[in-house]
Amino acid sequence: MIRVGVIGAAGLAGGELIRLISQHPELELTFLGGSSHVGRRPAELHPGLRFDVGLTVESVSGDIADDLARRCDVVLLATPAPVSADLAARLADRVPCLIDLSGAFRIRDPELHRRWYPSVHRLDGLADRFVYGAPELIGDQLPGAALISLPGCYATAITLGLAPLVFGLGLTLRTVVVDGKSGSSGGGLQLRTADLHALRHGAIAPYAPTGHRHSAEVSDFLDRGKPGRIGTLAMSAYGVAQVRGLLASCYVFTDDDVDTRLLQRTYVRFYSGHRFVRVRRHTETLIPVPDPQAVLGSNYCDVTAMHDPDGGRIVVLAALDNLVKGAAGQAVQALNRRFSLPEETGLTMQPVMPA
Amino acid sequence: MIRVGVIGAAGLAGGELIRLISQHPELELTFLGGSSHVGRRPAELHPGLRFDVGLTVESVSGDIADDLARRCDVVLLATPAPVSADLAARLADRVPCLIDLSGAFRIRDPELHRRWYPSVHRLDGLADRFVYGAPELIGDQLPGAALISLPGCYATAITLGLAPLVFGLGLTLRTVVVDGKSGSSGGGLQLRTADLHALRHGAIAPYAPTGHRHSAEVSDFLDRGKPGRIGTLAMSAYGVAQVRGLLASCYVFTDDDVDTRLLQRTYVRFYSGHRFVRVRRHTETLIPVPDPQAVLGSNYCDVTAMHDPDGGRIVVLAALDNLVKGAAGQAVQALNRRFSLPEETGLTMQPVMPA
Amino acid sequence: MIRVGVIGAAGLAGGELIRLISQHPELELTFLGGSSHVGRRPAELHPGLRFDVGLTVESVSGDIADDLARRCDVVLLATPAPVSADLAARLADRVPCLIDLSGAFRIRDPELHRRWYPSVHRLDGLADRFVYGAPELIGDQLPGAALISLPGCYATAITLGLAPLVFGLGLTLRTVVVDGKSGSSGGGLQLRTADLHALRHGAIAPYAPTGHRHSAEVSDFLDRGKPGRIGTLAMSAYGVAQVRGLLASCYVFTDDDVDTRLLQRTYVRFYSGHRFVRVRRHTETLIPVPDPQAVLGSNYCDVTAMHDPDGGRIVVLAALDNLVKGAAGQAVQALNRRFSLPEETGLTMQPVMPA
Amino acid sequence: MIRVGVIGAAGLAGGELIRLISQHPELELTFLGGSSHVGRRPAELHPGLRFDVGLTVESVSGDIADDLARRCDVVLLATPAPVSADLAARLADRVPCLIDLSGAFRIRDPELHRRWYPSVHRLDGLADRFVYGAPELIGDQLPGAALISLPGCYATAITLGLAPLVFGLGLTLRTVVVDGKSGSSGGGLQLRTADLHALRHGAIAPYAPTGHRHSAEVSDFLDRGKPGRIGTLAMSAYGVAQVRGLLASCYVFTDDDVDTRLLQRTYVRFYSGHRFVRVRRHTETLIPVPDPQAVLGSNYCDVTAMHDPDGGRIVVLAALDNLVKGAAGQAVQALNRRFSLPEETGLTMQPVMPA
Repeated sequence: MIRVGVIGAAGLAGGELIRLISQHPELELTFLGGSSHVGRRPAELHPGLRFDVGLTVESVSGDIADDLARRCDVVLLATPAPVSADLAARLADRVPCLIDLSGAFRIRDPELHRRWYPSVHRLDGLADRFVYGAPELIGDQLPGAALISLPGCYATAITLGLAPLVFGLGLTLRTVVVDGKSGSSGGGLQLRTADLHALRHGAIAPYAPTGHRHSAEVSDFLDRGKPGRIGTLAMSAYGVAQVRGLLASCYVFTDDDVDTRLLQRTYVRFYSGHRFVRVRRHTETLIPVPDPQAVLGSNYCDVTAMHDPDGGRIVVLAALDNLVKGAAGQAVQALNRRFSLPEETGLTMQPVMPA
Repeated sequence: MIRVGVIGAAGLAGGELIRLISQHPELELTFLGGSSHVGRRPAELHPGLRFDVGLTVESVSGDIADDLARRCDVVLLATPAPVSADLAARLADRVPCLIDLSGAFRIRDPELHRRWYPSVHRLDGLADRFVYGAPELIGDQLPGAALISLPGCYATAITLGLAPLVFGLGLTLRTVVVDGKSGSSGGGLQLRTADLHALRHGAIAPYAPTGHRHSAEVSDFLDRGKPGRIGTLAMSAYGVAQVRGLLASCYVFTDDDVDTRLLQRTYVRFYSGHRFVRVRRHTETLIPVPDPQAVLGSNYCDVTAMHDPDGGRIVVLAALDNLVKGAAGQAVQALNRRFSLPEETGLTMQPVMPA
Repeated sequence: MIRVGVIGAAGLAGGELIRLISQHPELELTFLGGSSHVGRRPAELHPGLRFDVGLTVESVSGDIADDLARRCDVVLLATPAPVSADLAARLADRVPCLIDLSGAFRIRDPELHRRWYPSVHRLDGLADRFVYGAPELIGDQLPGAALISLPGCYATAITLGLAPLVFGLGLTLRTVVVDGKSGSSGGGLQLRTADLHALRHGAIAPYAPTGHRHSAEVSDFLDRGKPGRIGTLAMSAYGVAQVRGLLASCYVFTDDDVDTRLLQRTYVRFYSGHRFVRVRRHTETLIPVPDPQAVLGSNYCDVTAMHDPDGGRIVVLAALDNLVKGAAGQAVQALNRRFSLPEETGLTMQPVMPA
Repeated sequence: MIRVGVIGAAGLAGGELIRLISQHPELELTFLGGSSHVGRRPAELHPGLRFDVGLTVESVSGDIADDLARRCDVVLLATPAPVSADLAARLADRVPCLIDLSGAFRIRDPELHRRWYPSVHRLDGLADRFVYGAPELIGDQLPGAALISLPGCYATAITLGLAPLVFGLGLTLRTVVVDGKSGSSGGGLQLRTADLHALRHGAIAPYAPTGHRHSAEVSDFLDRGKPGRIGTLAMSAYGVAQVRGLLASCYVFTDDDVDTRLLQRTYVRFYSGHRFVRVRRHTETLIPVPDPQAVLGSNYCDVTAMHDPDGGRIVVLAALDNLVKGAAGQAVQALNRRFSLPEETGLTMQPVMPA
């Protein structure tokens, strides 16, 4: 059994990690940490998870590195970016493997990082060593990695949506407009008036019409090694009345000529062997897809791509459950690869739909 | 009192017309027509409207023109486009004023019409005579008009959103990407499996990733008289889990230089004197706006525009209640202008929010 | 014009009061008060209400009675019960009319009050003088009243549901089980984790399985003057995923024999002349009613009653919009009666449905 | 591997069976049947389940018994009650094991059956032989059973809620009022106007204020062998705006004296060893429980019981996912017992919450 510690155990991603670890045949939860809710059992914090793991939330202030190193083979940070930056500085090289779910180490370029995460002070030397844990796209870097930074939920959907165009077809994407729609769980359990049910239930909320951090993360990743693949990537993000799930709509303008059949064929081939990316046709089932409701609770990312002859663009749609493939599920998937387990171990649950 | 007939009285737009007419001090409902539900009282069809107008739904087959002409000063068609095309052919020049809420007469160009509405056969000569009833944009054509075609719900939001750029600033819009998000009431009460609550509640449904008719309607209108103002207008539309309301996000690429302050100033000036368009700043209130929840049940269209320096684009957002400003409310607004009543008569209700 | 002050202007009931007063032909808003958000304009606090009333929220600490007396003919308290108790002590007899929307003065019996509102210290002598402002049930006490306490939202629905049994048929209700279902707006805009959209969207939340205060309020009122009409009244309340609206289901066990026809006839007669109570038959329209969605945004309370031969009980259902008939609308209705205006003045808006 | 056939594969319960069987280590899907959608693959009918089981829906008209007997060790009927009655007559004694999810065989008493299911003609001799498959309550009858009838979704929640009172404490329940609240998935995918999203999203719908069949089913079961344990059981059922999940509130009047501590102790003891029933305290976690959102997608039924000193009653709350513990999950649980597998095999998934 691989012994796993989770820091940030009281949050939504933390709860989802506990859910998935409890269903995983090779993982054992051995540490729960946090800065609040110290002493509480998971069942008190996560209403669905009414089982006893024999652990309560422990404080992570003070020098916890030796204790963690003794008790865990891997530590998952489900903490806000500034906390992750601090914890990583304290734990790197002292625990065997650290997997961060926050944005602290996603953007490799230091200047770009400072611009988009001005309040997240991290050590550049440390940041360089993090592997960007997108299992389908950089999978061979994961086995044995000591430091893994997981992509953001939107970034996961967008990069999985655009990668076949960039890496499969070798297109240069002159302009990409991304319109993201997501549920309320993306904001966690922080108390904000605009996130109260009374003000969110009826909302189509333009919470980030410009300036979403994940756009920088996507550009930073897709351009690595060969700058210029992406001209402009302009993103806007909206909150809708679901809890889980997001849909990233990518409208791609390119100078190349591609039709829908070529796109579908390319996407199918590109993700062949990657069971967690499902390439779909828009009308293949009862409802138009990709739709996040069709991946609820599962580790799938559904994608499709089509040519729009009237609009002169490629429409790429990617849907995922932001708490699973966009966070805890992808963390387990990366962890599986890190420890050379079959990638799907503990992640074979099918979507709960309709729900 | 102006005597009003409503055909399509059993549908959602029909019900909303009945609601608004019942609250209007100068209008009197004198005829209800439909092809189904004949003999039913409005209260049986519209659960909220439990009052007796002394009318039941009457059949509109057969020659009803003389009867309607006797009983009504104006007839509103809240019918599907093919039915409207047929009724207009039968009623034009025989009733004093006809206002059509469908798409039958929105696109003036005959070829464009045939391409986007292949199943809606209309008389081109008749179509030429319809005024495109966008009160804020062509208001002086409405007084006394005999035939009025109301803009589509999305088209209303998009044209109100883009008009200040085109007509106010005189910009040429090289590329416009429109991402529309709307509730389920847009689809009416037709029985479709994908519109059942069980399959729609959790959906972010890409129902028209390409090929939405309203994109053609907007281009057709904005280009009238001076083609070339809009290069490409590419639209995608999504169903979200609300019932009422839509948000049109317009991402505009232009070669001109405009900043957010200029945009706000232009929009405020452009809509000065137009009480139903509210120019908002994104962060001026408790929730990010425009958000359709903030116009629910009212005839307002909320708009904002901002420059995105990273994305090299202008972001225009427009929100409205598709059954009010996007249908029945705008019909009453056009009717008010047609009969030279103050534009806001019967339409002063404030948004019901939160709801 | 009647000059109106609203204290608690930043809350949901406060916002609804501003909405209704702005639509009312005889009322003028002349004062907005609160203990927080001082200096803010209504539009900043209520996203739907983007108009300028020329007022900002003013502090209500200090001696404000003289100022209020000069500026207002009536002051509405949309404040929490303890604040209302304090304000009433300071303002009674110093402003011409005070209408309290909180629970501070609803229960007349001092001991009962202390038991159910232990933290609301009020003057018993003052409490005695408040009229319980249920317009349909005690309407003749309202004209000229100086102090009015409005019923709770649930209490309004339950008393309107039960009154025809008690006062119309003269039944003794041996046991009444009330099961209440309501939306999230009942809890206002206070920040509580369980009220975040992420935790409320999927909920059927048993927030008060026992011990709901409104049960005491209903018993206290229905028993006035003639104790014993109600044996046990046991209430449980649940939060569901709407924002507005509540449905009170009253399951009544009585020793008398009544069938559904007698019930319907009694209810219709009892509420004849009361336009805001709509007596409905369960299957009279497209959806089963009463359903709160069919009264959304309006001042209606929909009721029905039927005999259940298998269950040996009477089932009474009452639905209303908790922010309108359950709060601000009923306040305006009482105010209209207080000032001898037609009861429906400013309240003729029809339900916004579907929404 | 146990070979399983599913008839009614296109419905919601059918889809959920396919989901659970695909995750079950000892079950293999070998037949899919239905009267519509013949020839379709599961992925076309169930948007979340995009895998190929190598089967398409086959017609079940004609003599299919021999074919089924060859291909299946057990056949699950996820069909409407009249279809199940017909299929059972044709398949009983010809396939090794038949498990019916419908109401056709739930009520054992023939007269009671005819009264509540007048359109479901079944053979009384056949009905007698069905085991009522409530695993926690009659578990020892399941191993080797040839004919199993699964309890209804509401009946499961109510009987699990009341059983400890009746069988654990031996109380006589003078009057039980059941108020049920459930999501839209209970109605399946049939096309009904009232089930459209536009009319259901805002609803608190009193769809069965009296006369719900499951009340008869519960009485029939709890009274078996020893009539008189339950006096009156009166049920009302409401549709709320969720998709999955139901909450059964049982208000119990009894002549015995029980307090909350005794109730909790009794429930914990009664369900000790039954992992799928979780006895909860109302305030033990972040949200009030039982709440169906805390069991979403899982096979749990959460229950609690408390004494209400004011109301003179016991309040019992039971929540479950109607498609899992109320249908497909309980079917697999019963199947596991029937074939002497550990009861939890394939059912260990934790709730997906929040969602």
